[in-house]
Amino acid sequence: MSSDIEYMKLALEQAELGKGKVSPNPLVGCVIVKGDKVIASGYHKEFGGPHAEVDAISKIEGDLKGCTVYVNLEPCTHHGKTPPCADLLIEKKPDRVVIAMDDPNPIVKGNGISALEGNGIETNVGVLEDEARLINRVFITNMIEKRPFITAKFAMTLDGFMAQRDHESKWISCENSRTDVHRFRTEVDAILVGSGTVRQDNPMLNVRLVEGRAPKRIVLASHLQLPLNSHLLKDDQAKENTIIYCTNEAQNIKLVNQLRSEGLNVKSISKNSKGKVDVRIALADLLKENNIGHIMLEGGAKLFSEFFELDLIDEIITYQSPKILGSGLSPFEYIKPLHLSDESRFQLFKTEVIGTDIKAVWSRNK
Amino acid sequence: MSSDIEYMKLALEQAELGKGKVSPNPLVGCVIVKGDKVIASGYHKEFGGPHAEVDAISKIEGDLKGCTVYVNLEPCTHHGKTPPCADLLIEKKPDRVVIAMDDPNPIVKGNGISALEGNGIETNVGVLEDEARLINRVFITNMIEKRPFITAKFAMTLDGFMAQRDHESKWISCENSRTDVHRFRTEVDAILVGSGTVRQDNPMLNVRLVEGRAPKRIVLASHLQLPLNSHLLKDDQAKENTIIYCTNEAQNIKLVNQLRSEGLNVKSISKNSKGKVDVRIALADLLKENNIGHIMLEGGAKLFSEFFELDLIDEIITYQSPKILGSGLSPFEYIKPLHLSDESRFQLFKTEVIGTDIKAVWSRNK
Repeated sequence: MSSDIEYMKLALEQAELGKGKVSPNPLVGCVIVKGDKVIASGYHKEFGGPHAEVDAISKIEGDLKGCTVYVNLEPCTHHGKTPPCADLLIEKKPDRVVIAMDDPNPIVKGNGISALEGNGIETNVGVLEDEARLINRVFITNMIEKRPFITAKFAMTLDGFMAQRDHESKWISCENSRTDVHRFRTEVDAILVGSGTVRQDNPMLNVRLVEGRAPKRIVLASHLQLPLNSHLLKDDQAKENTIIYCTNEAQNIKLVNQLRSEGLNVKSISKNSKGKVDVRIALADLLKENNIGHIMLEGGAKLFSEFFELDLIDEIITYQSPKILGSGLSPFEYIKPLHLSDESRFQLFKTEVIGTDIKAVWSRNK
Repeated sequence: MSSDIEYMKLALEQAELGKGKVSPNPLVGCVIVKGDKVIASGYHKEFGGPHAEVDAISKIEGDLKGCTVYVNLEPCTHHGKTPPCADLLIEKKPDRVVIAMDDPNPIVKGNGISALEGNGIETNVGVLEDEARLINRVFITNMIEKRPFITAKFAMTLDGFMAQRDHESKWISCENSRTDVHRFRTEVDAILVGSGTVRQDNPMLNVRLVEGRAPKRIVLASHLQLPLNSHLLKDDQAKENTIIYCTNEAQNIKLVNQLRSEGLNVKSISKNSKGKVDVRIALADLLKENNIGHIMLEGGAKLFSEFFELDLIDEIITYQSPKILGSGLSPFEYIKPLHLSDESRFQLFKTEVIGTDIKAVWSRNK
């Protein structure tokens, strides 16, 4: 059993190699062991490409008799972009398949395991399951909630403020933290901001401080109150990488047409009871139409508060600097003030000192 | 030189054994080495007791020829409660004395080193000086600033609040963090609160969750607006361990006499320009009259803000919990709002995960 854990760790390491490249597919790694020796390993390398099992098995000639296959996600049984992995395993006949977690999709969950078992292949499910759920938390949220996984990110002062009250734009966190944010931007599929942030900060939301894939930039702008010369609407990524959501009200039509005629991607969707863009509809659309599996919210406080009240924040990343402001803008100040209780929606997942700051990752309790 | 560092580490470890017992004296450890062997070690064990050098040397018969003495603070030359350590060293004639830092008291600084050198004993000053300054930061502040070292402690939510706006009293931090605060209480000489905290929270400010020395409880109550039945005025430590500062205004006299007649320690001192107790006078008095070298501020926000504006906070300890409030009481909300700049008065000193919370220690940049 302890060697099962060791080999599953290797499979998870393989899986992580696909980070930033396979979304909205899951990260999957596969390790094939014969005797005490790893004879092949593989991983899912890019969206639409071969699955991890296929990648690993392709490195071996002949069948897998006498082998154990380690894979961090239940092998698929559906005919998608590639043939079902369960079928391939059944054909190759390993003695045993060790699986970290079953498929989160309620419709197919367990099918892969049943298929293997039904064909005389022993399975062992649940080895390093927590770790497996963690690296695929984005995929799991996509499957179960039918929306992107949402990480809210903000820098805060020692005393909890993310900006001066007058919104004067100055850095709160240190340069190393800002570089860390840019690195994270390459790992998500999109960054989402409210129109207020575009008006006040005119952010570029691109990747400048590190190498890597530029994420889509999504703006929720119910009434399209966006300066036409803002970076997100004008820069060289604007046509390809900016997606704007507004309400489908008559008053927006003229502006929608104007923006579209300039090549911008503007989507007009249903409004909610407050007359604003219905966030849940926008999110479902982003996953379904644009393969956006992971979104980072970059503010402002109104956006954070709305997502918090809708319970749409899966993870919070804070960068706390040693600066003190006394008073200022609080990240969730637009929510109905809460009362302290013993329960907490979030829990501390990990901390790290970055430059002069504390980075903390807080996870939604499930 | 690298062995100098190793032996000085041992001296610092000895020094730390006096923690919580020697204040307002410094923590001092001494290690005596002959050849490659530690032949004696000692430390300053209690306020008024023998100094570290005396403790170590007492374990050796005869002189110290051929020996090196490691001590984390310059040996004293003054006749205090014990005779000067420099004289004892000169008498015992070690070959060399290695010293981490010189005496912070500007009046005697360097005297011990000169005395040793003048008597043919080689000295080496500055080995692990940063570490030595750190463990004696309280003593150094006492010597240079002529006031207690001040640590402001508060628990805060993920979004930066230390209480609900309505002051309803509920725990923000987890039980492990509260135990950690009680442990810290045993290490400081006193806890200081404002009268508002006494009125609103009626705290006990004693040590319940761990074993250890109970600190003094100090209340700044300019106009003595304190409920007479509050814990700090009524519990079994009230007469011995509570110190109340009010202004020496005529209107306080009757109440001062009443409280004193009940055995309470009430000090009436000069008021500042706002008609409140002059904090600097109270602090100087506490160090001089009560040997209070280290004070923990436990709130509330008015007290934190006043101490911050007077630049009297040497260290901040935060316990950040995963709870979210949206809005609430901010720790420094009574200061004149600051502007973000590249400079910061504090820097992150260390972080630790305690239970569900992040503990962070932030040090005043000197």
